[in-house]
Formats: sequence, C-alpha cells, structure tokens
Amino acid sequence: MPFLWNAWYVAALACEVNSNRPLARTLLGEAVVLYRDQAGQAVALSDRCPHRFAPLHRGRIHQGELECPYHGLRFDGSGHCVHNPHGDGRIPPAAHVRSFPLQERYGMVWIWMGEPQHAAQTDLLPFEYLNPEHNVTASGYLRTRAHYQLSADNLLDLSHFQFLHPATLGSEQMSAGACTFFEQGETVWSRRIMHNEKLQDFVANAFGVAPGSNADRRLDVQWNAPGLLTIEVGVTPSGMPPEFGRMSLSGHFLTPETDRSTHYFFAFGLPKAMGEAAGALVEYAVQGLMEPFKNEDLPMLEAQQKALGDSDFWSAQPVSLAMDGAALRSRRIMERKIAEEQRASGMRQTTTVIDSTAIMH
Amino acid sequence: MPFLWNAWYVAALACEVNSNRPLARTLLGEAVVLYRDQAGQAVALSDRCPHRFAPLHRGRIHQGELECPYHGLRFDGSGHCVHNPHGDGRIPPAAHVRSFPLQERYGMVWIWMGEPQHAAQTDLLPFEYLNPEHNVTASGYLRTRAHYQLSADNLLDLSHFQFLHPATLGSEQMSAGACTFFEQGETVWSRRIMHNEKLQDFVANAFGVAPGSNADRRLDVQWNAPGLLTIEVGVTPSGMPPEFGRMSLSGHFLTPETDRSTHYFFAFGLPKAMGEAAGALVEYAVQGLMEPFKNEDLPMLEAQQKALGDSDFWSAQPVSLAMDGAALRSRRIMERKIAEEQRASGMRQTTTVIDSTAIMH
Amino acid sequence: MPFLWNAWYVAALACEVNSNRPLARTLLGEAVVLYRDQAGQAVALSDRCPHRFAPLHRGRIHQGELECPYHGLRFDGSGHCVHNPHGDGRIPPAAHVRSFPLQERYGMVWIWMGEPQHAAQTDLLPFEYLNPEHNVTASGYLRTRAHYQLSADNLLDLSHFQFLHPATLGSEQMSAGACTFFEQGETVWSRRIMHNEKLQDFVANAFGVAPGSNADRRLDVQWNAPGLLTIEVGVTPSGMPPEFGRMSLSGHFLTPETDRSTHYFFAFGLPKAMGEAAGALVEYAVQGLMEPFKNEDLPMLEAQQKALGDSDFWSAQPVSLAMDGAALRSRRIMERKIAEEQRASGMRQTTTVIDSTAIMH
Repeated sequence: MPFLWNAWYVAALACEVNSNRPLARTLLGEAVVLYRDQAGQAVALSDRCPHRFAPLHRGRIHQGELECPYHGLRFDGSGHCVHNPHGDGRIPPAAHVRSFPLQERYGMVWIWMGEPQHAAQTDLLPFEYLNPEHNVTASGYLRTRAHYQLSADNLLDLSHFQFLHPATLGSEQMSAGACTFFEQGETVWSRRIMHNEKLQDFVANAFGVAPGSNADRRLDVQWNAPGLLTIEVGVTPSGMPPEFGRMSLSGHFLTPETDRSTHYFFAFGLPKAMGEAAGALVEYAVQGLMEPFKNEDLPMLEAQQKALGDSDFWSAQPVSLAMDGAALRSRRIMERKIAEEQRASGMRQTTTVIDSTAIMH
Repeated sequence: MPFLWNAWYVAALACEVNSNRPLARTLLGEAVVLYRDQAGQAVALSDRCPHRFAPLHRGRIHQGELECPYHGLRFDGSGHCVHNPHGDGRIPPAAHVRSFPLQERYGMVWIWMGEPQHAAQTDLLPFEYLNPEHNVTASGYLRTRAHYQLSADNLLDLSHFQFLHPATLGSEQMSAGACTFFEQGETVWSRRIMHNEKLQDFVANAFGVAPGSNADRRLDVQWNAPGLLTIEVGVTPSGMPPEFGRMSLSGHFLTPETDRSTHYFFAFGLPKAMGEAAGALVEYAVQGLMEPFKNEDLPMLEAQQKALGDSDFWSAQPVSLAMDGAALRSRRIMERKIAEEQRASGMRQTTTVIDSTAIMH
Repeated sequence: MPFLWNAWYVAALACEVNSNRPLARTLLGEAVVLYRDQAGQAVALSDRCPHRFAPLHRGRIHQGELECPYHGLRFDGSGHCVHNPHGDGRIPPAAHVRSFPLQERYGMVWIWMGEPQHAAQTDLLPFEYLNPEHNVTASGYLRTRAHYQLSADNLLDLSHFQFLHPATLGSEQMSAGACTFFEQGETVWSRRIMHNEKLQDFVANAFGVAPGSNADRRLDVQWNAPGLLTIEVGVTPSGMPPEFGRMSLSGHFLTPETDRSTHYFFAFGLPKAMGEAAGALVEYAVQGLMEPFKNEDLPMLEAQQKALGDSDFWSAQPVSLAMDGAALRSRRIMERKIAEEQRASGMRQTTTVIDSTAIMH
C-alpha cells in the first residue's frame, strides 16, 4: 500500500537535530538530512547531492549552509546551491535539492513529505501535554522493522498486555476489563477499564499506589491519522475517591521509514507546576516503557512483519476478534485517506497531461 | 523444481520435541511449530497465528495446548482455536491453523506435508536398526544451505572421500575400489568395495582394526525417495575370515528446509544385545562423522549451491562421470515422482474447477 | 550498462598469484581462479568444475595442474581435464573449463575476458615506469563496492581533494589552481596546477619540501579505456628553478568485479638508478595513499553506489559542473566503445543465425 504523503510526520526528536552534525534519516522511503541553521531553525533536505549523489549528511554545516562532503557545493535551507568553490563558481540552475516543510512543536521536528503547497493549509494536531512551555517532557525513540500500521495496531490493542507484557504492563485482571471503541471523523478511541487490579510494580510505582494495594485502572488510547496517538492512563487506588487518582499522558508517533520499517517516537509530559517531581516521573515512565517496548513489542512486531513478508495485511487473511475493533477502524481510515490521495494525485496528473496536450496544439 | 509433497519427511529428532519449549522449524518452505501434548504425543502446527500472524513457537504450552504469545489464543493438537481469553470468549470459525500428520519412529518425528488424506495410506520405510526397542542409537543434525538433492548426491557418491575427506574417511586405496550401482523400483544402491585398505585412524578405531593393519572395506548406500538413506559399512581386517568383520548401519535423512537449504538428520544404531559397548560405539560414530560432515561436506555443498545460484541443476549443464550413476538414478526418480504429483494435483484442480462451474449454472 | 569485454584488465598483482594456493577472484561478473604452473606461468581458469560446480580454487595445484577439491579431476592451464582418478579414468569430451588469455607485465597479471581471438591483436598500453626491469615498484589493492566508472570519475577529478582529503592530499590553495582537460583518440587528460601551495605533511615529505615551505604542484591524470590511469605529480618548492622539482608516477587500474564493485590496483615506480631511496619512497607513497583511499574515497564511492542503487548513472540525472570535464569525456568514450562492441557482437550473432538457417534448408 502506498504511503499517505500529505500529512505531518515526526522526523526527529528536537534534541536529535543540531547545527554541528547533520542527521540522516529515511522517511517514507526517502533519504532526508536534518540540521539547524544559524538561527537554530531546523532544515530538512534531500540527502543526496544533485551533482554526484554524495550523501549530504556527511558534510559540514557552514554558516547555516550544508556543504557536500565530496566537492564542497553548499546548499541553503531552501535547498538551493549557493556556493560552487570551483573554477568560475558558476552554479547550474538545476543544482538544488528538495527542501521539506518543517515545524518544530511538542519537542519534535515535524516534516511534510507530500505536496508542499498543502503543508501550510494543514494544521498539526494538538498535543498540549507535550508543549515544553508549560510541561516537563521526556522522550524515547525506537526503530522497528515492521510496517507502521502493525505498530498502530499494537498501540490501539489493550488486550495483549497480559500475554506479551505479563511482568511489566499486564495483569491477570485485565481480561475482565471491558473494552470499548469509538470513532469520530478521523479519530479512533480504544478504552479499557479494570477494577480492583493488582498492578505490576512498575505501574504501581509510577502512579503512587502503595505496594500490595489494588487499584482501578483506565486506559484510553486516541489514534489519529497517519499514526499519531495519545495514551491516557488513569489509576485510582481501589475504594478511594477519584480525586486520589493520578493520570498520565503520553504521545506515540509513528513515521514510516520504509514500507517495512517504522520510526517510533514517544514522549511523556507533566505540568511544570508539579515541580521537581515531574521531571523524575516522566523520565521514569520513558525508561520503564522502553524495556517492554524494546524486548517484548518490538520482537513481536518484527516477527509479524517477517511472517507477512511481501504480503499485504489483508491478503494474509487475518482472522479478527472483537478486541481488534479500534485497530481495524484506524486501518480503514488510513486506507480511505490513501485511496483519496491517490485518486486526487491521479486526477492532477490527468489534468496536467490534458493541459500539455492543449499547449501542443 | 517443486518439492515432493506427499511423502514422510523427518521433521525433528524425537529428543528435540518436548512439552516445555515449542520447536520452530521451516519444512518444505513452510513455518511449522512442533511440541508434545500432555500425553507426550508430538504435534505439528502451522507456526503462525491466524489472528495477527504471531509466531506460535514463542508461546507457552498450556495443558497440551499452544498459546499464542501475543493475545493468548490457544490451539489444540488438531489446530483448532479452543480458547479466546478476551471479551465474551467467542471463537471465530476461521480461527484454526493447519495441523500436520505426524508419526514418531526410529527416534525421529516424521511429518506429512502433503495432502493429509494420503498420509495414512503411505507406509513409512523400515529402518529397524534404529528401532529404540531393540537398539541403542545416537543421532546428529546439521542444517545445510544447499538443495537436498546435492546432499543426496554427496551421500550416494563413494568417490569423493579421498579428495574431500583425505584425513578422516578417505584413503589412497579407495580409487582402486570397484563401484557398482543398481536400481529397483524406487530404491537406488551405490556400492564400493576396497581391498587391503589403509584406513584412517577414526575408521580403524570404529571397526576395531589394529593400528597399522590393513582391512577390506565395503560401503553400501541405499537411497529411497524423497531422501532417506541407509549406509552400511563392513570392515574386515585383511586376510581374516568374514566372521572377524564388523558392520555399521546408519540412517541419513534429508528434509528440504527451503529450495536452497536442507535439514540433515543422521543416526547410528547397534543392538542392545551388544551391551555397554554399543552406546559408546554409536556415540563415537556420530561424533566422528560430525567433523568431516561439518567441516568438509557442508562447505562444499554450500559452495555448489552458491555456484548454482538461481539456476536449476540441469540448466547448469553438469558433465557427468561413470561414478555419478547412483546419484543420477536418484535424481531421475525424484523428478519422475514430482512430475507425477504435479500432474495429479493439476488434474484434481481441473476437476474442482469443472465442479464449481457446474454449480454456477 | 554491459561491460567492455575485449580489453586487457588487471586480474591480480603478480605477487598475489602463486603455485601453492589458487587465488579466487570475480572479474566482470565471472568467477575466475588464478595460479602458476610449474614453469611459473600464470594461469586463469573458470573457477567452477564442469562436473558438479565445485569451486576449483579450493583444490590443490598438482604439478602445474589444478585439482578439483571434490572429486579430484585435474585441469591443465588450457582448461582441459587431463586426469580422472575414478574407474577407467575416461574423460568426457565436455570436461573442460574456460581458460583466459593472460600476460604478466608491470608487476601485474593482465587478463582478457572477451573473445580470445582478439587478445593477441590488442597491445597492452605501456606503463614503463612500472617495468620491474628498470624500476623499483610498490603496489596496493582495494576492493570497492561501487561501479568502476565512479572510481574513474574520482581519479580524474582534481577538485575533491580539499573537501574529501583535507588533512592528507588537499590544500586550501587547490581551488585556485587552474583545471584543464583534453582528449585525443581514446585518451583523456586532466590537469591542475597550483602555485604557492601549503602542502599537507604527507605530500611535502614525499616530495622533499622543507617543513613550512610552500610549493608549486602540478597534477596530471591520464585515463585510457577501460580504466587504466597514470597520475603524474610534479612538485617544486616555490621560487626554486624547475630542476629542484621532484616527480612521481603512479598507475591506477580499475577492473570491474561486478556491475557494482571494482578491483582497484595501484602502484608506484621509481628508477632503480635512484638507489636505495627509491624503495623507501614508493613504499611511503603506497602506504600514504592507502589511508585516504580507504578511509575517504572508498566510503564516498560506496555511498554514491548506494544512492544510485539499481539506477544507471544518467537516469539519476546528475547535474554536472565544469570540473567534471575529464570524467565525462572518459564516460563517453567507454559508452561509445561498449556500444560498438555490442553492435559487433550482435552482428556476429546475426551472421551465425543466418548461417544456421542456411544449413537448415
């Protein structure tokens, strides 16, 4: 299945992009280089010199321009070659690379890989709990050799914890928790509520539940195209009134690297108003999730991808269960959006062909 | 060339299959998982959950059922999903995996990868010298990245010892030994008889030939489709009457993993009546063969496969010699059997098509 | 693009080919084995036994014949099987491997991979500065996973030093040096002359320029098809008369391994008349160049190839600069020669077809 091109994707954590060392990253199958110019503005260019295809990310950043490591051509943030150090210094008109619209928000650098004219018209979804102005945040990154939608399935699926994460995120009581799904516009929600659950230590600690006490846990996953999720977890010691509960919010952002691999970014945010505890808590959450993500989810996602091989998800004839409701809804939204984009792109191409025919007469 | 599907193949050594830890093995290109149920009966299922393609071999064996490691669906030995831990627990009718006919004999688990209805009608060939009731046995396993027929060629070929195994199995006198081949039904024999041979230490020790003494050696290889061989070796110190000779029998079983790799199982058996010596001798034989197999045959087979690449054996235009007689006979039998199977399968498919057309009218 | 077949290529450094251990090397996509016969004459055969495709390079050299490691067939320098150790020893007429015309000159073994009848008619280009009769030489070898023409581009390109080799071969003053290119017949020259250049230590030492002194440097690269280059470097301390200058000559020979990898051989020669200093100097030059070649050029060439992937150079739409003049000329000569060869080969094939049709009537 083709990618959805006209959408904002996370290209990198903001801290990964700097003005000393260009960052190479493949996004939707394209080699991209990211760096910061003299004003600290993030820039994303095609990572391939138009002269002799050298990887620009191996070059130096020189006064906000990226210098090709092979022959020293320099490109500015718009992708134009602005310096040819050889001979008379003439710059051929074709000497430019593609530059990608970027915006930096929520501690992430967001990229627009599709048609640039649509970028400005498309708002980024809000993830205010990650807004660094008011929040303390911590983030993690994992590369996963599996299709991004398998990752989305996994995040929307609140029934695998007790099997894949028995010692970290799951519990024996989870299967008794009621699952509900809903869909509105292009958003899908997956919710599961557990009562009187014996939490694993990692989770109990994170939510301040006393050792040995049971708790009520609410898991709310919100998915938006193309793969931007917020997970809200609410935990209240059993029998206590709701005001004794604690809540956590995290963002989970999936960017296709290729059609078989995914950049997975995730981040936790807590209000600065919480004081010092906030920083320790978001770090604890990121570090704590990294383990099950890396050692349990990631191998499973990669095994699924390996089993699929060259097959499309549907042609592998999956048998679905009630618990797959949210994941299936998100798949259908993506399929619809991609089909629409392909149709629109086909129409534009047809129009262009007609126009150029007209010119020929 | 397609595989021969309707045949018994060794899937695993009996000791490899247990009730604690499922065994994953690719057989004829298919991912299979093997384990034992509560009665100790070996079970082979398709190693792919029908729900979301998780590899079942990473799951637990729970009361003789195999539990999917991702979402906890459980499958019984017939491949039916018998437990869905989620929601109302309903099990979709399509929630089953393929189960393969198995039988356990001669210390091996044999599998039928073809049409199940033919399994019961097809007898396993006898390898009584490996029957654990009357024999002490020892076995070995090697994965070989080469087509199974290259391995069969190698085992039927009694002329490469002095070149590929000069310090272990071969001797200077081998080339003087007369080779004969014969074929009957679907069995091929390759025989070579050496007189007054100076055996390598490993062989001399195994057959109780005194150091420095010469011996007469008889090698008899019997091949049966799809790649089941018995090798009989008889050694008599030169000049001694035949009753002073010793004999060894070993089974060599080839199972395609893919069309470029092979599971090679081999085993020695000696009568329990021999007492304690039998156990030591079969172990000595397996360990002794492992070295030349692994360090000499295996790299050669893999080099042949690499040289062939995507080419079929015949399209690579091999020049054959008289000594290839047995290997070529076995190749022709396999080609004939595969062609017959393909033809029969094509006819069945045609019949089905005609039937469904009839239904449409 | 197809290879140019009818041309002399370097197969190996002369010191790599001996009579003890056959050398395996893939040349223009073909597996070749090289060794020396009893007279010390280099031999090149197809590295694949015609019997069962065993790699001949793993065999022994036995009295100037190469013995197959699997079954002991022996091949002489003309590629004919001259010994079958089995049975009646009959040798099938088809039991031969291709033998390649060779000549040993300039410390290299040169091979003709094309139609053998053209080999004798084609003179090898002279590289007299490497003639071991009058010169002391030193040589190096690097395998490069990139198309040979990317290597040729690199060697003809005198404008990348200051960017790719800032600490070894380049200088700040290089970009001020005037570049000129010329082409005559099938030879291309690339020249760059620098005045008052501050040389890197490695270069200054090699040419006896006192530390801290500036120099005038002249770089002359001569390219000949299919990828045989001579680089002449002349260095004179600035302000000194030309007779105080020193000069170095080196050969750079590119042989395609596959269409994505290249054998790169290079060598320096100095007249024996120079005495002991010559040996030390050529060694110093080879060792000194090995570093930037291996750590700077090679990764760049491989990155270019990776960026090209399956694309042809032109279909990747490179933007060219004035400084690419020599490389582009050499590319056009190769393209013309390959097209001519393909045309001639097509005509010969057509003729053959017509002939055989005639025979059929």
